[in-house]
Amino acid sequence: MTVLYFEDFALGQKFGSGWFAVDAAEIKSFAAEYDPEPFHLDEVAAAKNAVLRGLTASGWHTASITMRLLVESEFRPAGGIVGFSADEIRWPRPVRVGDELRVETEILHVRPSKSRPAYGIVKIRTTTFNQGNEPVQILVSNLLVERRSG
Amino acid sequence: MTVLYFEDFALGQKFGSGWFAVDAAEIKSFAAEYDPEPFHLDEVAAAKNAVLRGLTASGWHTASITMRLLVESEFRPAGGIVGFSADEIRWPRPVRVGDELRVETEILHVRPSKSRPAYGIVKIRTTTFNQGNEPVQILVSNLLVERRSG
Repeated sequence: MTVLYFEDFALGQKFGSGWFAVDAAEIKSFAAEYDPEPFHLDEVAAAKNAVLRGLTASGWHTASITMRLLVESEFRPAGGIVGFSADEIRWPRPVRVGDELRVETEILHVRPSKSRPAYGIVKIRTTTFNQGNEPVQILVSNLLVERRSG
Repeated sequence: MTVLYFEDFALGQKFGSGWFAVDAAEIKSFAAEYDPEPFHLDEVAAAKNAVLRGLTASGWHTASITMRLLVESEFRPAGGIVGFSADEIRWPRPVRVGDELRVETEILHVRPSKSRPAYGIVKIRTTTFNQGNEPVQILVSNLLVERRSG
């Protein structure tokens, strides 16, 4: 897979990914460690939740799975994926047991870094889709990417 | 611990948390699962990274630890902590082996939900501090909170 330097990125480029299958055991084990709420831990309690209506993955679990898909995707910036901020995260619908997720990443903006001359800043939108092609997460984030000349 | 309904929240209220100690084994095991980049997995590779200069936790690991601290904190909205979006996440400095983290949550805005009359929307800023009282993450997020009358 080709490593991409700052100079290689341009507005509108898109990158795909493989798939990640979400099962109940992983939803519960992530939640037990990092987001121990009944609607992420237990099917019966989750079914009673009027908003979520059934076991759902923590939003931070979805964000973490998204990162895994991104790291293993065609999107391969020089120096690795070093995000320093996000402008937005939305979780428009829950991730449920049996969902299969993939990501699409689009380049929104590129600019040199003022404080780090050997780097540029690349703004990306990473949309996480389920098997029904419905977005489950939209993330706009800012990455430090090495310059070729750097 | 008192459960707080939408009507109980007001601009400027603050909530503290306990502490979470970050060790190398947990940084590496989270990264192996969700963010397999050399600077999160291996001390030698991490030391060579010109930006991070040593083993650091994935930003999504920091976000997940933040959620754990929040769920176990004094901040206890009715219906659980159900976030549907974040307006901003920043990671102003890395989380390193041996860091001890805590969070402070401040209420930024409260408003009724137009689409869900039984709920209100509470915007919060959750700042994650290390043992030196330096912010390692700033997160502004939007939660659905049950109304008492709902």
